[in-house]
Amino acid sequence: MSEGRLWGGRFGATSTKAFDRLNASLPVDRRLWPEDVQGSRAHARMLAEQGIIGEDDAQLIDGGLVRIADELGSGDFVFAPGDEDIHTAVERRLTELVGDAGRRLHTARSRNDQVITDTLMYLRGRAAEQVELLREMAEALLSQAEGHVDSLVPGYTHGQRAQPVRFAHHLLAYVWMLNRDRRRLAVVVEACEECPLGSGALAGVGFPVDRASVAAALGFARPSPNSIDAVGSRDALVDYLHFAAQLGVHLSRLGGEIVVWASEEYGFLELDDGFSSGSSMLPQKKNPDAAELARAKSARLTADLGGLLGVLAGLPLAYNKDLQEDKEFLFDASDTVELLLPAMAGTVATARFRADRMGAAADGGALAAIDLADHLVREGWPFRKAHEAVGALVRSCLERGTSLAAVGDSELEAAGLGGLELPELSPEASVESKAVPGGTSRARVLDQLDAARAAVASW
Amino acid sequence: MSEGRLWGGRFGATSTKAFDRLNASLPVDRRLWPEDVQGSRAHARMLAEQGIIGEDDAQLIDGGLVRIADELGSGDFVFAPGDEDIHTAVERRLTELVGDAGRRLHTARSRNDQVITDTLMYLRGRAAEQVELLREMAEALLSQAEGHVDSLVPGYTHGQRAQPVRFAHHLLAYVWMLNRDRRRLAVVVEACEECPLGSGALAGVGFPVDRASVAAALGFARPSPNSIDAVGSRDALVDYLHFAAQLGVHLSRLGGEIVVWASEEYGFLELDDGFSSGSSMLPQKKNPDAAELARAKSARLTADLGGLLGVLAGLPLAYNKDLQEDKEFLFDASDTVELLLPAMAGTVATARFRADRMGAAADGGALAAIDLADHLVREGWPFRKAHEAVGALVRSCLERGTSLAAVGDSELEAAGLGGLELPELSPEASVESKAVPGGTSRARVLDQLDAARAAVASW
Amino acid sequence: MSEGRLWGGRFGATSTKAFDRLNASLPVDRRLWPEDVQGSRAHARMLAEQGIIGEDDAQLIDGGLVRIADELGSGDFVFAPGDEDIHTAVERRLTELVGDAGRRLHTARSRNDQVITDTLMYLRGRAAEQVELLREMAEALLSQAEGHVDSLVPGYTHGQRAQPVRFAHHLLAYVWMLNRDRRRLAVVVEACEECPLGSGALAGVGFPVDRASVAAALGFARPSPNSIDAVGSRDALVDYLHFAAQLGVHLSRLGGEIVVWASEEYGFLELDDGFSSGSSMLPQKKNPDAAELARAKSARLTADLGGLLGVLAGLPLAYNKDLQEDKEFLFDASDTVELLLPAMAGTVATARFRADRMGAAADGGALAAIDLADHLVREGWPFRKAHEAVGALVRSCLERGTSLAAVGDSELEAAGLGGLELPELSPEASVESKAVPGGTSRARVLDQLDAARAAVASW
Amino acid sequence: MSEGRLWGGRFGATSTKAFDRLNASLPVDRRLWPEDVQGSRAHARMLAEQGIIGEDDAQLIDGGLVRIADELGSGDFVFAPGDEDIHTAVERRLTELVGDAGRRLHTARSRNDQVITDTLMYLRGRAAEQVELLREMAEALLSQAEGHVDSLVPGYTHGQRAQPVRFAHHLLAYVWMLNRDRRRLAVVVEACEECPLGSGALAGVGFPVDRASVAAALGFARPSPNSIDAVGSRDALVDYLHFAAQLGVHLSRLGGEIVVWASEEYGFLELDDGFSSGSSMLPQKKNPDAAELARAKSARLTADLGGLLGVLAGLPLAYNKDLQEDKEFLFDASDTVELLLPAMAGTVATARFRADRMGAAADGGALAAIDLADHLVREGWPFRKAHEAVGALVRSCLERGTSLAAVGDSELEAAGLGGLELPELSPEASVESKAVPGGTSRARVLDQLDAARAAVASW
Repeated sequence: MSEGRLWGGRFGATSTKAFDRLNASLPVDRRLWPEDVQGSRAHARMLAEQGIIGEDDAQLIDGGLVRIADELGSGDFVFAPGDEDIHTAVERRLTELVGDAGRRLHTARSRNDQVITDTLMYLRGRAAEQVELLREMAEALLSQAEGHVDSLVPGYTHGQRAQPVRFAHHLLAYVWMLNRDRRRLAVVVEACEECPLGSGALAGVGFPVDRASVAAALGFARPSPNSIDAVGSRDALVDYLHFAAQLGVHLSRLGGEIVVWASEEYGFLELDDGFSSGSSMLPQKKNPDAAELARAKSARLTADLGGLLGVLAGLPLAYNKDLQEDKEFLFDASDTVELLLPAMAGTVATARFRADRMGAAADGGALAAIDLADHLVREGWPFRKAHEAVGALVRSCLERGTSLAAVGDSELEAAGLGGLELPELSPEASVESKAVPGGTSRARVLDQLDAARAAVASW
Repeated sequence: MSEGRLWGGRFGATSTKAFDRLNASLPVDRRLWPEDVQGSRAHARMLAEQGIIGEDDAQLIDGGLVRIADELGSGDFVFAPGDEDIHTAVERRLTELVGDAGRRLHTARSRNDQVITDTLMYLRGRAAEQVELLREMAEALLSQAEGHVDSLVPGYTHGQRAQPVRFAHHLLAYVWMLNRDRRRLAVVVEACEECPLGSGALAGVGFPVDRASVAAALGFARPSPNSIDAVGSRDALVDYLHFAAQLGVHLSRLGGEIVVWASEEYGFLELDDGFSSGSSMLPQKKNPDAAELARAKSARLTADLGGLLGVLAGLPLAYNKDLQEDKEFLFDASDTVELLLPAMAGTVATARFRADRMGAAADGGALAAIDLADHLVREGWPFRKAHEAVGALVRSCLERGTSLAAVGDSELEAAGLGGLELPELSPEASVESKAVPGGTSRARVLDQLDAARAAVASW
Repeated sequence: MSEGRLWGGRFGATSTKAFDRLNASLPVDRRLWPEDVQGSRAHARMLAEQGIIGEDDAQLIDGGLVRIADELGSGDFVFAPGDEDIHTAVERRLTELVGDAGRRLHTARSRNDQVITDTLMYLRGRAAEQVELLREMAEALLSQAEGHVDSLVPGYTHGQRAQPVRFAHHLLAYVWMLNRDRRRLAVVVEACEECPLGSGALAGVGFPVDRASVAAALGFARPSPNSIDAVGSRDALVDYLHFAAQLGVHLSRLGGEIVVWASEEYGFLELDDGFSSGSSMLPQKKNPDAAELARAKSARLTADLGGLLGVLAGLPLAYNKDLQEDKEFLFDASDTVELLLPAMAGTVATARFRADRMGAAADGGALAAIDLADHLVREGWPFRKAHEAVGALVRSCLERGTSLAAVGDSELEAAGLGGLELPELSPEASVESKAVPGGTSRARVLDQLDAARAAVASW
Repeated sequence: MSEGRLWGGRFGATSTKAFDRLNASLPVDRRLWPEDVQGSRAHARMLAEQGIIGEDDAQLIDGGLVRIADELGSGDFVFAPGDEDIHTAVERRLTELVGDAGRRLHTARSRNDQVITDTLMYLRGRAAEQVELLREMAEALLSQAEGHVDSLVPGYTHGQRAQPVRFAHHLLAYVWMLNRDRRRLAVVVEACEECPLGSGALAGVGFPVDRASVAAALGFARPSPNSIDAVGSRDALVDYLHFAAQLGVHLSRLGGEIVVWASEEYGFLELDDGFSSGSSMLPQKKNPDAAELARAKSARLTADLGGLLGVLAGLPLAYNKDLQEDKEFLFDASDTVELLLPAMAGTVATARFRADRMGAAADGGALAAIDLADHLVREGWPFRKAHEAVGALVRSCLERGTSLAAVGDSELEAAGLGGLELPELSPEASVESKAVPGGTSRARVLDQLDAARAAVASW
């Protein structure tokens, strides 16, 4: 049997450092201190109420934890070399401050139920803040939409101009995406409703704790139903990462469009100086950095989601050290969301959309072809035949360099449409003709604006 | 300007085949035919009710579509070389059957709103079926749990035996995971509630369609609020892939445990012949193939989720051909879920769990250490001090080769615990002492079984 | 102990079907038949040469395998219900054809070393074919580049026009990417050099096989050095998926650019009818489907890579059923590469790039600003000061609506540049001034074309 | 046109902070300072040699940069609020120190070519260090393998004991994986051979720089061939992330095995105190944290790879802000590799593998079945028939509770093997019988150890 003697000789104490460096989670989880202190205060109070610890001990603990929170909040807290994570740091300091009472805090608790309780509380808090960031983003879009009900822009398919739409309509598409993201955030909050405290290391605890009261004190709806599941699952975090990834996709699509709109070729918008970076030499150049980063960070949010799923895959129950990796993905995604939303809200809110350029782009004859075909259908033509006839007409126009709106009798006859009364083929007529719910007519878009405003107001 | 002449000369018609091969989606989307036919029937009926097409045309269309469904269902449908996707195949055949009436079907519709409508209907249907598969999986776990309320097994942390639990409790952890998966499936169904039909290519349609009636006829709750969003978003599919990925993680964890339990070293279960593969030479060898594949396929489901998010990232509105890739991920994940759940349900339901082996593993002295420390805490010791004292005792037992349950006065004194009245330290006493909700005592586990049964019954 | 009686009663034989459906790999691995037959022929020949089986048996086996290959190639092979995978199908049929000789084929072999040997041979073959597809793609780019040495186009940063470049230079950037992809393919081929045959199930084989000779007969460089590693690793497949993912990124970038270039706003190219899809109604509309799909399929190739890595993560040695999933990712990626490359090569080769539109876009005054600043630096100005002065000048031009090329004395004086002799500020002068290797001057681009041609010729 | 007035009113300057927070890369890229200073020194020296700046300016710049490096190295460097990234910070400070000379440094350079040059130099350096970490990991495995040539252990398939192997053989499988990882690292270094400096913003530079000399001075093999590709591609980083992901898979497999081996059920190894975490209460418990984290971090490394591929997908040439995300993935993966390798090397090197427990596990009768079948084949039986006969014998032994090694005449006759001379069926005989290259016989494993030692020595 090899005794690892060589290793001892060659690496000695430095090797152990290699282990400690890998193992330490304090740099990551220290941000959980407010939840950790809050959770410990509620736990100690309940222990005293249940007679598991004495009231005097509970008061010492509470006083100590309040002081520790002050120290952590003000930056005066001194971490010790042995503080492996935030939980041990707080308990170590508490024992320094209040002695044996501190040594009683961990009664009927384990780090396994403690860490997931802290994390769920933290996640719930971030989710609440992010609702407000979603709202600001939605309001930036709604404000711009209100200003652009009468601005026309091409709607695109395959990157090609297809049909004119109101620019408000285009912007509102993003509000509905955010509305779904907001619902996903509600699902996340629901996934945080069960309090793991009392699950112990994995089997529950051997003391008559009142799980319901501590759950309520910490803002949970109820205790978790199974101790093994409680300490070993991370579904709520995955739910959050799913929310973040979908939001990331939505913002990346908006970001991608802003980059394209800001190009000289499109010229649909001018970015505000405060939300673009420039060049000392090219003062007219405004780089849409926030939009570009929104485009890029979608991949990062997707990677965070896939990463945590990968960590969890195949893991045996109940607790494994692998689960320590959960917070890195959660915090990275959450921070990214909180970086992106305000920057994108500001980018949209301060952008000057150029209705003139958008309108000109929406006024191509080709965009009217569908409307002409619809006209023929209304006259009784079968849809597919109408499409073929208009196709022939457009082809003939292209060959003669005529615009569809200005087509003459000879082109009509050449296309087998002799005698046709051309309807009005303006972009305005086109958008007004789509008067179905969810369509582009002025009345419908105003309805939709109201509905979207109401949806956001209810968040 | 380069004219691509060389290409024409060198590659000619074969090149175009390269394009067609890449572009064709029929092999993938042909499975959507029932939804496509159903959607077209509802659309045509509504068109007639709104006076957009004639009643006679509507009847011809309906008859034709019924016949097409027969042909597709029986395998008699002959696809034509030009059938790029299932939608064109159905319409092409309809026109063969009913002439100009068939050419009217696509009035007030576009492939863009049609394909996402079909897909949402399909997804809704699969989700409904998968609830039943989840239920069967849960029932297999519940049945085994009922038979193993009194079987003890070690609960593990870090892959090490930590505390005894009832095996029913361990199995129930998976039922709660499935309960969350079921909730996620409900979220998916909700995400399919808005009917895109009437959104046209992207801007809505220029005919007085009744979007609400066609939505209701097809089982949707309401029409979608924004035509661009309706044709350009794929959120519901991502929601489903998220469900599938989380389910995949849960099944992979169970799969991983089954593989380990089935090893000679653990020996906790014996697989049924029908749910394992063997060897002609090693008749005693039973390979846990389904469990291994459940472990592996988690990665595939995660890849499907990440893949679709990647397709969507950065895409401009409204419709792009990229979206055609959505179905490949959806179908792959959905098929995988439907392969995995029955195979895993059968694996669990038919497995013989060996209570004797599990019980023996749960009866190590070390697992009692936490209980002894809890005993000291109940006697008034601060938690951390109790832990240290028990640590010293265990160390002393290890050195002397004594078991904790059989420790004598001399070891107690050596550990500074002279005079201590040892409590009962059996695994049974241990699991009974965790009498908190969600804990391992018999009463609590029976409560939990009831709650889990009720939850599954409400699915 | 629960006996699974319920299950037996309720599900019976249908449950076993659930297992078989999950377990069967024949639909996936049947395409490996040519490698399987070839591998078996070489194995049998070697067995006879080593005296492990008789020469007569070897000849029977060889004759049988030749016939089986004929049957499989012509589609006459009839798979039997029990054929779990292609390996069992071939051996089952062989025994039907040649009796006991067929039962000797698997001597000194296991399915574990057989399947990975087949897969590496298959991968090597696909890689060789794909070099030719890369070459065609590169040649399409080179041909277009040759025709566009003198076409100027804006180079973009942040989606904004930044500096003029020769369009050939832009296209050549993609050739260098493909050159790296080709090198990655060479790495893949190297990763397939070690023949696993002779590794048996995991421990090697108990017969005096000649591993070197069978390796050579099958085109490998040498036998694998460790039997456990040989049957349990899938590195070569991951290497291939990495190649495919990087290629996918490159093609997606080109695809994304083609979509943008084909827009009305850019108008830089017109797609060939054979490599775009149109509309019966909008004959002028050409959808860049291949480019869009190239953009989308990057996500799929990345998902395949991540998927296989996820399958492998955490797997114990040596063989696990999880490894069966490897082929699904490999085949999907490989098929995708073979769909994409010809379609994109054709798209590029047949596209008509519009030098007039590109040139007009490259001729904006702002693009000349950097050249003017460089001019000042050559006159002795510190770089940062030159940039600031030119910035002031551009700002003044913007305010007065003057172009930089046509700036007058008053603007120069206003910007503190009174008396400056303006250099020529045309796009042509700009590209010629970048005469460094890898730069845009005519001579350098011609050098680069030669170098790129030579690189591709050496593939 | 909406003017964003509301935004200005409501958010004011704080909004711009939102943009700056998203945009700033200094916290991430500041670690590139050594490469940035080195690159700038070489650039300035070359500029002077080419007469593009004066010798006196070059000397001022060089002195300033040396001082800046001192400040950065000692922690005395004071970052200014406007320092967006490390490149601007260094140039800002240089201009403070040496005035106009500092303003000349950026002549013939852009941040676009500068940042990728710095990054490639950094990557090259990390790769070189990581070869040494790979070597230490390989040596830990080799040392243990040397000590366990004569320790037998079961080889597993499907998690089931399959055949005995020498434990050295099992450990060497990981050395060959690392050998491939080392080759992948060599590919990464090759991918860093082309120096981007001189590519400017995207088009090259308008000064007669000597690209070859500055490339050589910075340790590159040659200048990059195309300026657009040079600033817009990130292939080398993806190559590195591919290396890291494959290494991550290998370490996760080893980690997963260590966790299992360390279980009470297997009991194959005892971890060193320095490379495991314990519990004050359970002194005998040693948690294999490093192995668990190695298992988990594979998912993270895979996520980093997928993340960067996702960022790059679909990006237009040449430079986009999205590329700024590259470093976050690179640094995260690189740091993770450098955390994992030493911790895992230490874990392996200091572990006490228990040859007694492994040997006992390898001595099951079932493992001998294959050897018995091989014996029959050597006696002339067709392989498949031999397998069936042994299967019948094993089944009969199982029913009678006899071990295969101790089978008597009656069982032999019952299985149709009457009169068979049983060969020796010990694990030792089994491993010795696999005397093929790459097999488990003592001589072959010693050969393999030599070959592996030689391979590692050549790294």
